[in-house]
Amino acid sequence: MISVEEAALRVAEAFSPIDSELMDLAHLAGRVVAEDILARADQPPLPISAMDGYAVRRADGNAPRRVVGAAPAGHPFNGTVGPNEAVRIFTGGVVPEGADAIVIQEDATAEGGLVLFDEKAVNPSNIRVAGLDFRKGQVLAPAGKRLTARDCALLAAGDITEAKVRRRPRVAVASIGDELSRPGESRRPGGIAASSGYGLFAMIQAWGGAPCDFGILPDTEEEIATIADADADMVVTLGGASVGDHDLVQKALGTRDFSLDFWKVAMRPGKPLIFGRLGKTPLLGMPGNPVSTLVCAILFLRPAIDAMLGVQYGTCSVPSRLKCGCTAMAARVRRPLGANDARQTYLRARLSQANGELWVDAFDVQDSSMLSTLAQADALIVRPPHAAPAAPGDHVDVIPLDGH
Amino acid sequence: MISVEEAALRVAEAFSPIDSELMDLAHLAGRVVAEDILARADQPPLPISAMDGYAVRRADGNAPRRVVGAAPAGHPFNGTVGPNEAVRIFTGGVVPEGADAIVIQEDATAEGGLVLFDEKAVNPSNIRVAGLDFRKGQVLAPAGKRLTARDCALLAAGDITEAKVRRRPRVAVASIGDELSRPGESRRPGGIAASSGYGLFAMIQAWGGAPCDFGILPDTEEEIATIADADADMVVTLGGASVGDHDLVQKALGTRDFSLDFWKVAMRPGKPLIFGRLGKTPLLGMPGNPVSTLVCAILFLRPAIDAMLGVQYGTCSVPSRLKCGCTAMAARVRRPLGANDARQTYLRARLSQANGELWVDAFDVQDSSMLSTLAQADALIVRPPHAAPAAPGDHVDVIPLDGH
Repeated sequence: MISVEEAALRVAEAFSPIDSELMDLAHLAGRVVAEDILARADQPPLPISAMDGYAVRRADGNAPRRVVGAAPAGHPFNGTVGPNEAVRIFTGGVVPEGADAIVIQEDATAEGGLVLFDEKAVNPSNIRVAGLDFRKGQVLAPAGKRLTARDCALLAAGDITEAKVRRRPRVAVASIGDELSRPGESRRPGGIAASSGYGLFAMIQAWGGAPCDFGILPDTEEEIATIADADADMVVTLGGASVGDHDLVQKALGTRDFSLDFWKVAMRPGKPLIFGRLGKTPLLGMPGNPVSTLVCAILFLRPAIDAMLGVQYGTCSVPSRLKCGCTAMAARVRRPLGANDARQTYLRARLSQANGELWVDAFDVQDSSMLSTLAQADALIVRPPHAAPAAPGDHVDVIPLDGH
Repeated sequence: MISVEEAALRVAEAFSPIDSELMDLAHLAGRVVAEDILARADQPPLPISAMDGYAVRRADGNAPRRVVGAAPAGHPFNGTVGPNEAVRIFTGGVVPEGADAIVIQEDATAEGGLVLFDEKAVNPSNIRVAGLDFRKGQVLAPAGKRLTARDCALLAAGDITEAKVRRRPRVAVASIGDELSRPGESRRPGGIAASSGYGLFAMIQAWGGAPCDFGILPDTEEEIATIADADADMVVTLGGASVGDHDLVQKALGTRDFSLDFWKVAMRPGKPLIFGRLGKTPLLGMPGNPVSTLVCAILFLRPAIDAMLGVQYGTCSVPSRLKCGCTAMAARVRRPLGANDARQTYLRARLSQANGELWVDAFDVQDSSMLSTLAQADALIVRPPHAAPAAPGDHVDVIPLDGH
């Protein structure tokens, strides 16, 4: 048995960024940048007015100006502002030549063809200089960044219509077990609906991967071995990792060029985790209990997908990094927690806020077959090996579960 | 001018849940439940073993047992465990009749047809009773919950194949301005690429709506009035809300059965916000500066979409509620902030963690035309009207921007 940290390290080292594809601006949100995206133009392209008002020459002071034209956004004034002249201008309008300040309309009084100003009106320039937001050639989104909606607006402003992003890694998922059938199907006595896979597909999609449903395989070596035929960047098996004294998955794949990296991690839930390579394809064998499956997915599969996408965590926001499972937040426990044994333990729990602080409370029952408490949870409390008991108010590390 | 709070209240009151649609299990993640989803079966359906081992009668104590059969998962033993008998059982296997405890295999020694036990082996039952996770008819996901990946696994376990969820509300988005053209298109001097819409489309999608691109409209009343023809649950306009002394949008829609609720909110960025009804369709007119647009979207459009989806915030996790913009987190400021004026101010900022606490630092320049800092930000600091200066270490409210 190896530690969670060592397991995570070995998994992370086994993956590298996959190939990229050109994607249209309208479909970039959530995708990971493959090559730095550079601005194709200055923004703003020319000096523009930040306010509605009058474009003037500052040197003319508070003298009345003759209004010689107008410059609404999109309609530049085709001339020069001369001494004691002004051009009516609106937010986003190009500042005409000759002008070096905008007097806001609240400080101006129009009278006939003239405009009169308050005393201190021309002090601020109210001009957005060309390139204020960004310059042509500047990096708008670095390689490894997962693009947000805000990034998409920024790219549009930079005149970007398409960009190279990582292809969605294909993750083949096979559920193993004679007791399993699909939801809604008739089943034998004691049989149950395969459930983990549906949660896993949604997680894989949310994390930027493309789940491929390899279906339900019975507990026979011949059937399990067929997953070696999956056309995927990564194979995930659910269940079969610890049946009695043997591991069916490893046994079944023994004939299919499977090389084991590790089996069994000192954690709860999720001990019988398998990691290795099926030919060149990484394989993550997760335990079949649904809570174990989904907790292992958050801890090991998400970083694997991130690694295939080439995600650079430094380019993500703090909440995003937390969601990667690689950074935990601190919270204070509401009720006491007992001492932990040698296995790192993940407790389903609920977060709350009080007086600007984050609090967390673990569910009483933590059986790894119980999906209902996992669905109600919004965080996992991380209990390191041999952790001392925690008293109410003590700080513990939590992994927020957020949307997944 | 009204306060942000009053504006948010008026917007929220104008929306109610729209109709629902039946959706397949595989597409339920992220959707909002329209009617409570009830379990169609007990989980587990029968008592099952939580461990690999031997099913025995507790009353027989530590006496050796004769192994009379096996019960792997999916293959129940078709008989009864009699006195001094045992059935080999595996995790997930149905506990055979007569047995009331599972002795784990680590505590057992098989010898010929017999199995011998350690002294305290039969104390824990290691049995998961029928219905331990949930009972048939129990609510697995209440109306108003936005379904997570974990919920999808739970629904599958409850034998759910489809569920009624709210239809994605159609949000028509029109960008208004003579200065605008699409990214990549040639443009006139001083013209710029329409950018806010691309960020907004991605936000609307992430929040569960269906964006409809109504394109770019020039600054003429005739063209702007065409948005009244949009087939949508809600209309959003970007720009045109404050051009010189008048509001083009209101003027244009005056002939199209537009009734104004409010115009102008005491906030920065985003003052010239319009809200009203175009016939029966709610209309949110947002300022054209991209930062103003996207901040107003987080504050007003997201709750509007949530209201159309019938989201019940009590059913969401804490981080989800934060993302709705309706609850802020507390963080401590790294560098001092000045006193605020009468407008509620939203500062682009970056979060960090130190010693289990959340810290936040505002960008120096907060010009509402600058998308680059909005893209780099991961939170908005909320500065209430007339807020006193904040010293380093003081607590402020922040809205995490997370993925959007």
